[in-house]
Amino acid sequence: MKFDIALLAGDGIGPEVTEQAVKALDAIADVYNHTFKFNKALVGACAIDETGDPLPEDTIKLCQESDAVLFGAIGHPKYDNDPSAKVRPEQGLLKLRKSLGLFCNIRPVKAYERLIENSPLKKEIISGTDISIYRELTGGIYFGSKELSEDGQVASDGCSYSVEEITRIAHLAFKEAQNRRKKLTLVDKANVLETSRLWRKTVTEIAKEYDDVELDFLFVDNAAMQMILNPSQFDVILTENLFGDIISDEASVIGGSIGLLASASIGSTVGMFEPIHGSFPQATGKNIANPLASILSAAMMLRHLDLQKEADAIEKAVEKSLELGITTGDINPKKPYSTTKVGDFIADYI
Amino acid sequence: MKFDIALLAGDGIGPEVTEQAVKALDAIADVYNHTFKFNKALVGACAIDETGDPLPEDTIKLCQESDAVLFGAIGHPKYDNDPSAKVRPEQGLLKLRKSLGLFCNIRPVKAYERLIENSPLKKEIISGTDISIYRELTGGIYFGSKELSEDGQVASDGCSYSVEEITRIAHLAFKEAQNRRKKLTLVDKANVLETSRLWRKTVTEIAKEYDDVELDFLFVDNAAMQMILNPSQFDVILTENLFGDIISDEASVIGGSIGLLASASIGSTVGMFEPIHGSFPQATGKNIANPLASILSAAMMLRHLDLQKEADAIEKAVEKSLELGITTGDINPKKPYSTTKVGDFIADYI
Ligand SMILES: CC(C)[C@H](C(=O)O)[C@@H](O)C(=O)O
Ligand SMILES: CC(C)[C@H](C(=O)O)[C@@H](O)C(=O)O
Repeated sequence: MKFDIALLAGDGIGPEVTEQAVKALDAIADVYNHTFKFNKALVGACAIDETGDPLPEDTIKLCQESDAVLFGAIGHPKYDNDPSAKVRPEQGLLKLRKSLGLFCNIRPVKAYERLIENSPLKKEIISGTDISIYRELTGGIYFGSKELSEDGQVASDGCSYSVEEITRIAHLAFKEAQNRRKKLTLVDKANVLETSRLWRKTVTEIAKEYDDVELDFLFVDNAAMQMILNPSQFDVILTENLFGDIISDEASVIGGSIGLLASASIGSTVGMFEPIHGSFPQATGKNIANPLASILSAAMMLRHLDLQKEADAIEKAVEKSLELGITTGDINPKKPYSTTKVGDFIADYI
Repeated sequence: MKFDIALLAGDGIGPEVTEQAVKALDAIADVYNHTFKFNKALVGACAIDETGDPLPEDTIKLCQESDAVLFGAIGHPKYDNDPSAKVRPEQGLLKLRKSLGLFCNIRPVKAYERLIENSPLKKEIISGTDISIYRELTGGIYFGSKELSEDGQVASDGCSYSVEEITRIAHLAFKEAQNRRKKLTLVDKANVLETSRLWRKTVTEIAKEYDDVELDFLFVDNAAMQMILNPSQFDVILTENLFGDIISDEASVIGGSIGLLASASIGSTVGMFEPIHGSFPQATGKNIANPLASILSAAMMLRHLDLQKEADAIEKAVEKSLELGITTGDINPKKPYSTTKVGDFIADYI
């Protein structure tokens, strides 16, 4: 089969790791007789540098015409210290999510037994953790009205959610729970927020259609504690945009393997797949960044394109690289392999 | 000296633990020749049960006329599963904070060397952690407009902050940093929120008056990660209401000693002092709840009333109880002492 893949490598280590994912996909194409056509486009700081716009129109158009988007990372230190700059890389990402209707961000968080020693948590606490986080991605306070009073004295952000926005992601999360351990935890702040109360009410209603799934609720402050005290209690977590941002980042470090975590953003049309680590400016260009998260994002993409055994093949290759210790310094500080070497191994193994 | 203390024991284990704090304060009164007059009032679920109102007018009045408020905990399971109930215990707490102008919530988070084995984090990660969290408590999305559209399809919450609200707590946090390790971290989401950008701008401006304090910034998602990866990097953390709720609860469990953490809420008038653990319904009435956080809240209260050596005396007694293992089952599962036994020991030792 033939697929058009938009390649948005972005900033920092984005291009280096995405390159390894492309290698892996090229190997898959060879073995399984597919054609992946990669079309590059600009996003983030590099797009601002070249065009003045963090998300040029061409990029949106390319994504919309593609079968999937493979994303690297965005962000550059020169923008970080000036969040009030008129143009910022993050705007590109937010606009991309909105333009492509990517309302559902999925982040699997798994404690790899092999890497458990790297976890900041004690082994007995992290062991067995396997969570799938469903974060709403195109609503809430991220996309509400933002205002600064004329005299600069008062700022405000609006947060709103509709039953429709909640419903569409809730169904996806319940279906995921049905395919997993049949437990769904809604994280909200229903003791304070009106939007959270609407989430709770709507999700409770929808739960009736999935009576094999156990639904429970956790206030976000409690969820932030439970993620450390007892992460293996979670199966699928469903939550709104801002809480999802915080809880999923917290969850991403408990396994000690952030360099392995991939994510999918899906919705109305094309899906976007990206490693959850950021642009990691300190490592840029040094050929030391871990490419496995990007490679596993490619596997998530294949799964989404319904190429199951191709996805399995990538995941098996990643397992093998961990087994043999052919990994970058974040995982294997004593005998680190370079980004490209790890990528080569994966491609060869496939 | 003579002090009027409003005693708001509240729900769950609130009354049991507050009773031990009162014992400790009575012992202090004896030794140092003070008079503490304790006046009880209702708040939370018990107030709803008796009066229909989670915060009766009498309670507010009593607090306003007191020198300090000693608070237990609020919340009862019968309200937890129904966040859309018209009257809820939490409303009492939020209204109390607002009525008393308690805009600054202070939570010290310290990894007690003696309890480090209880931490979910590895010893080398948690060791040396000593953080003071300054959370804004009467603004932001907690107190913004809340709306549900007439057809019930759209809910919204407004979040706003003024320069004045930011300024008053920022000064308190900078002063605290000056008395500590001279580092202040502002936690925000300035890459997305207008209110966060106002926080960053205002705090940057104020920092000029405290040039011995190093100021840095962290996005809240990153802060949630750093709290697990490297908590000892933090000295004073300053943040808005909702982020403070999440980050401080996350921080409260990393030391493995949540039963020891106290907090102060201060502002325009009288201060309020409370353990950070909640009402812990499962333990209610069993004489097993850890009273040390409540007792240490009393110490914070004394410090705030400028009774320094009296506060020291309580803290020393708590140290001693830890040293001798005269503690409840959460700390000392092999040989647990009851709530009242621990309280008696503290009072006797004083
Ligand atoms: C860069 C930022 C706007 C973004 C977000 O907050 O959504 C990031 O933290 C993420 O989680 O993808
Ligand atoms: C009970 C709830 C409203 C409250 C809050 O969110 O402020 C609690 O979590 C706290 O931190 O004191």
